[in-house]
Amino acid sequence: MLKKNTIREFREILGSNNCWNRPEDVICYSYDAAYEEPVSPDIVVKPGNYNQVSKIIGLCAEENIPLVIRGAGTNLSGGTVPLSGGCVLLTTGLNRILEFNKEDLYAVVQAGVITAELALEAEKNGLFYPPDPASMKVSTIGGNVAENAGGLRGLKYGVTKDYLMGVRFYDAEGNLIIGGGKTVKHATGFNLPGLMISSEGLLGVMVEFILRVIPKPEYSKSLMVVYNDIIRACETVSEIIASRIFPATIEILDNFTIKAVREAIKTEFPAGADALLLIEIDGHPEVVNKDFDRILKICNSFNGTVRVANNKDERDKVWEARRMALSSLSRLRPTVILEDATVPRSKVPAMMKAIQEISKKHDITIGTFGHAGDGNLHPTILTDKRDRDEMKRVKMSIDEIFHAALKLDGTLTGEHGIGFLKAGYLEGELGAGTVNFMKKLKHGIDSKNILNPHKMNL
Amino acid sequence: MLKKNTIREFREILGSNNCWNRPEDVICYSYDAAYEEPVSPDIVVKPGNYNQVSKIIGLCAEENIPLVIRGAGTNLSGGTVPLSGGCVLLTTGLNRILEFNKEDLYAVVQAGVITAELALEAEKNGLFYPPDPASMKVSTIGGNVAENAGGLRGLKYGVTKDYLMGVRFYDAEGNLIIGGGKTVKHATGFNLPGLMISSEGLLGVMVEFILRVIPKPEYSKSLMVVYNDIIRACETVSEIIASRIFPATIEILDNFTIKAVREAIKTEFPAGADALLLIEIDGHPEVVNKDFDRILKICNSFNGTVRVANNKDERDKVWEARRMALSSLSRLRPTVILEDATVPRSKVPAMMKAIQEISKKHDITIGTFGHAGDGNLHPTILTDKRDRDEMKRVKMSIDEIFHAALKLDGTLTGEHGIGFLKAGYLEGELGAGTVNFMKKLKHGIDSKNILNPHKMNL
Repeated sequence: MLKKNTIREFREILGSNNCWNRPEDVICYSYDAAYEEPVSPDIVVKPGNYNQVSKIIGLCAEENIPLVIRGAGTNLSGGTVPLSGGCVLLTTGLNRILEFNKEDLYAVVQAGVITAELALEAEKNGLFYPPDPASMKVSTIGGNVAENAGGLRGLKYGVTKDYLMGVRFYDAEGNLIIGGGKTVKHATGFNLPGLMISSEGLLGVMVEFILRVIPKPEYSKSLMVVYNDIIRACETVSEIIASRIFPATIEILDNFTIKAVREAIKTEFPAGADALLLIEIDGHPEVVNKDFDRILKICNSFNGTVRVANNKDERDKVWEARRMALSSLSRLRPTVILEDATVPRSKVPAMMKAIQEISKKHDITIGTFGHAGDGNLHPTILTDKRDRDEMKRVKMSIDEIFHAALKLDGTLTGEHGIGFLKAGYLEGELGAGTVNFMKKLKHGIDSKNILNPHKMNL
Repeated sequence: MLKKNTIREFREILGSNNCWNRPEDVICYSYDAAYEEPVSPDIVVKPGNYNQVSKIIGLCAEENIPLVIRGAGTNLSGGTVPLSGGCVLLTTGLNRILEFNKEDLYAVVQAGVITAELALEAEKNGLFYPPDPASMKVSTIGGNVAENAGGLRGLKYGVTKDYLMGVRFYDAEGNLIIGGGKTVKHATGFNLPGLMISSEGLLGVMVEFILRVIPKPEYSKSLMVVYNDIIRACETVSEIIASRIFPATIEILDNFTIKAVREAIKTEFPAGADALLLIEIDGHPEVVNKDFDRILKICNSFNGTVRVANNKDERDKVWEARRMALSSLSRLRPTVILEDATVPRSKVPAMMKAIQEISKKHDITIGTFGHAGDGNLHPTILTDKRDRDEMKRVKMSIDEIFHAALKLDGTLTGEHGIGFLKAGYLEGELGAGTVNFMKKLKHGIDSKNILNPHKMNL
């Protein structure tokens, strides 16, 4: 609980309109998009300028108040939930696109800008901001950077880190820190943009970014490929990559997910398919058509039936349906646990088999979809956290999914981050020495442990 | 000076064949490719395995011996020179390509692998490792990562950071630290590959990397464009980028550099040109030819005369001559100071004008060449460090080049790093708060200040 005096100080910094501490106001900030136990913050603040950000950090440092930074709260690893009360700082008041430079191909944006707004601004200028997490219509750029958000186009275009040129943030003492800049090459001191990507709110409060934008692809072609056997679909993915073809996107949905989407919305996804691949190829028309022919052959050789989108409307409907995968699955059981194991692309078939076996072995419902072209699958466990017996089997399944990914040269999380939910697995992947190194890094920069404390178990 | 006992301990770790402390042996490690005063290390060691690396760090930590890591010593900012004696650790004994994965498109290499060897291995496998610093025939991958080395192909293909997927290094206590991995997406904990890029030997001793390789471009076309006015050449560069065309390379050479290269080797560079642009376009043949036509028009509109390389031999000779720029200039005066100012690409003409004015104002000889397509120019000052009066004017010129770059939204260094030579300018670009943050980061991780101490003034 905060002292009355402290609350008054918050109000003095922010004005009373941007500062909430009544239980009914702060409860909405007690959870995010991850499965976990809710914890309410003591106070929620929404700064409208950088000076307020700096002062809030100063106050938290002085009073030893844990400070959790939050954009849209779409975090899938519990990163934006305060584990021990304290202050939640909303970045949504810092929501301006400050510069859009068409000549030098970058945008300067504040942390609270919605991802889709930046994508739209780029499009208006005939340009392209590729990172497109499924939540992009609500997620913020600040959150995207803090989690190194991926998306559907990661295969060809990479993830948020591949677009971050510069960052401005406030450190644990409220000092403004500048990293990177507006040049495409930058070697001035430590790589602070690289440090802050994936930092999950533990190293500073990010307020502003310089992001690269690129020319818009001229032409694209969208395919839906229908399989009777999901393993053949996975083998197709490995073969496309091994053939050195890079579509913009290769997404997969298993039969369970297809059915869930069909129940939720009207879609052309065929109910009987064991799996679907959704593929988009983009670029210069000649190259797209050539790649299309090669992909067609590969799909056929793995018994996939290809349907090509005939127009923009057909294409958009398919991607809209794909983006509904998680929310469609979420409707089916009270508790949804979304995993994020990622493996090298040649190991996608083996990873899919492992997931199937784990599901069977523990009698757990798992719907799997995800960015197959990145080796990034989202096995989604449907359960009920009140059912203790089932939850034990769920826990074992999660452990086994993690170990299967590691055994296949993979990683715990491709894009959702560690936060609170995955903290227990960090050491298993990286070793105690690495976790200790991360601790030294964290505490060297934030000696009072104010910024998102106890996340990643650091 | 090291104690006899300590030297014996070094020998015990390494065997006497990989450990030197006689003045005539260590003097070659007293300087690197940057202009500066030589400082000899007390001891030079060449570990052949990771266990030795760990033990050397442990010994240095115990005895408070500064530890400087060195690959080929091509560093251009004094980063590999020991400022206060101590131990130089050569990575050249760790020189194996451990894995080359053609299916999942990555290579696992040790720190001492020569850049050109990795490029060759990729080529043998029909793949492509793009980063190509001018020194790539001798530079090591470890040095490339520590400095975030760029090269001629940065424009289209990015720099070393864009290829680093994973890193293994030993921290200041000799513990093995693991960052990143073999998956194209990775969000497990802090972004340690991003942290170690550009870390210039201050944060750990890197021993192993996982590097992305990409499909080889099918086709390329090389152009030499001759200008009577270098500013028109610079305007061409800005216009190509603003037209959203991304050749693999756009290099510039001014008249002084052209003449220097002509004096050094046999070349087709025309003596009378005020400037040359060397452009290479690569990719799918259709796209290359289309981009070629557009570039031709742009060059002509800025009064550039285009010559196309007719075959591989002509092409190779042009790039060979370009790579001779620095060494050709170096022959002309006793002291060469290579600057690395980088600006957004639309500001290249303004930056070139600023360099010309500074050269004139202080009566200093500057030959300028570099990666114009990245906004990364290398104004190269030719002088004699024994001439105190001229050195004063050189110092003023360097200051003014730096300030001109900053004024144009640029940065101090695009690819050569800070090291010792640029340390005094760091605060001018990033502010005292940021330098202080970097200090906290460095000392949090390396509390005894063993690793490349005093570099970047941290």
